Amino acid sequence: MLYIIGLGLGDEKDITLKGLEAIQKCDKVYMEAYTSLLSFGLSPNGLSHLENLYRKPIILADREMVEEKANDFLSQAQLSHVAFLVVGDPFGATTHTDLVVRAKEMGVEVKVVHNASVMNAIGICGLQLYRYGETVSIPFFTETWTPDSFYDKIQQNRNLGLHTLCLLDIRVKEPTLESLCRGKKAYEPPRYMTINKAIEQLLEIAQAREDSAYTEDTECVGLARIGSEDQMVVAGTMKQLQLIDFGAPLHCLVITGNTHPLEEEMLNFYRCRTLLGAVRGEAEFKFLLFLENVRMGL
Amino acid sequence: MLYIIGLGLGDEKDITLKGLEAIQKCDKVYMEAYTSLLSFGLSPNGLSHLENLYRKPIILADREMVEEKANDFLSQAQLSHVAFLVVGDPFGATTHTDLVVRAKEMGVEVKVVHNASVMNAIGICGLQLYRYGETVSIPFFTETWTPDSFYDKIQQNRNLGLHTLCLLDIRVKEPTLESLCRGKKAYEPPRYMTINKAIEQLLEIAQAREDSAYTEDTECVGLARIGSEDQMVVAGTMKQLQLIDFGAPLHCLVITGNTHPLEEEMLNFYRCRTLLGAVRGEAEFKFLLFLENVRMGL
Repeated sequence: MLYIIGLGLGDEKDITLKGLEAIQKCDKVYMEAYTSLLSFGLSPNGLSHLENLYRKPIILADREMVEEKANDFLSQAQLSHVAFLVVGDPFGATTHTDLVVRAKEMGVEVKVVHNASVMNAIGICGLQLYRYGETVSIPFFTETWTPDSFYDKIQQNRNLGLHTLCLLDIRVKEPTLESLCRGKKAYEPPRYMTINKAIEQLLEIAQAREDSAYTEDTECVGLARIGSEDQMVVAGTMKQLQLIDFGAPLHCLVITGNTHPLEEEMLNFYRCRTLLGAVRGEAEFKFLLFLENVRMGL
Repeated sequence: MLYIIGLGLGDEKDITLKGLEAIQKCDKVYMEAYTSLLSFGLSPNGLSHLENLYRKPIILADREMVEEKANDFLSQAQLSHVAFLVVGDPFGATTHTDLVVRAKEMGVEVKVVHNASVMNAIGICGLQLYRYGETVSIPFFTETWTPDSFYDKIQQNRNLGLHTLCLLDIRVKEPTLESLCRGKKAYEPPRYMTINKAIEQLLEIAQAREDSAYTEDTECVGLARIGSEDQMVVAGTMKQLQLIDFGAPLHCLVITGNTHPLEEEMLNFYRCRTLLGAVRGEAEFKFLLFLENVRMGL
């Protein structure tokens, strides 16, 4: 039996009782390392938090292991109980459909334990989940590569009055260019995209287009570390959000469509509207925003 | 402090450790009764399951209580810790944004504990969450009321190649017509929409239109009791799914858009394609489907 267990978003205590019971039954416990450590604010040596709570040793399964060695741990799952832990929900933003397909092809029974993922926890900002259109991913641009397929999707959503969830790039264990050329394994340091960087890239692409799906004055919501104790949610225009330091990963961004009055009421709690009128310079805006965030307990 | 705690989808053990710890701190524990009992397969007397596990008495808060008496329990939350339990995620399919707004207006601090909701757990069927368009709700038609705003949304999604999650109507504690006229409180028996009924209504609306956003041959996925031990997932055309008894609530339906190869591979596990060619009559189809479901452990 292969248990694929969602860990939720914030920290080790976001696991469900059902997930915890499943882990207790397992002989081996793997955890996908793509985004997990980053999300839980842990260093690679910080696994002990989870191991102590779950009372099992955890084997980190990085991207290579999942892609190359899945057959090994699926073979184990043919004979005994194996757990595969994933941050969020097993079928959330990072999906594990391929693992399920491989397991089923090998005749391994699969049980899924669901949990929160960014795809539903994003509801915390007050924009109703059923009023979102297609989700987009924003990848890091390079000097030679500026993929912009997200633009048309955002435009479609906004034409329909729908909100757009933008998932921001995470680069963990990317091989260095040098290592690719020489065939040795060496990795780039982990990188995650900030809300500021995402907005910069969004505006860069919009400027190259004649129509404008959005501008620097378009209302957005920036969210950092959703589900954790120090999550941060700020509503404002792209221009305003670009001035804000959202701190540690992970970040994501919502571009609003048409909003309903109840949605507006919620956004107001995350907005610094009363202050903005009085702001003259960037430094002053940042200071007032800081005060406002303190007041709102953010 | 008001804790709004998601209970997840399956049963009482889908609560997170964080949610359980929050309940322990609270002087009063309310549970929204709109959909909870139905989802967890409990009768109104079946609360003791939850109370035993959570080690607290639970007060059922029905729709009237939440709407009319929210100020009472928000006043309690000004002075002490109060928990409000909701099935799924606090901002999932049934949203509690209004409660958050009222709490914040009264100066009550709010903490949200996220969990799985149908909005992300639907990923279990193998259709990628980021390829869904706007979610629609399908209400029960009456003799005089056949609202069809869902049709245009499904059409928009399908034109863009996107999948559509259809949430099906739940009627709990609806006042009877007689009680509305006489001012006495009396309620209709609870009703929930089956996948079969939803498809019947979908096809009724499509027949009245010239273009067709979908037909009885459109590929869909029917899902019942997502996240529980006896969940049922079947992929097939509307016509095929209409023949299937999905059993107890809650049901939902996905109308596919364009599918990717990996999505198709997953759908194949839920499909009875090999059998369908050989089927002559409805009874035979139902029997073969039954065998197939047994084989797949559904």
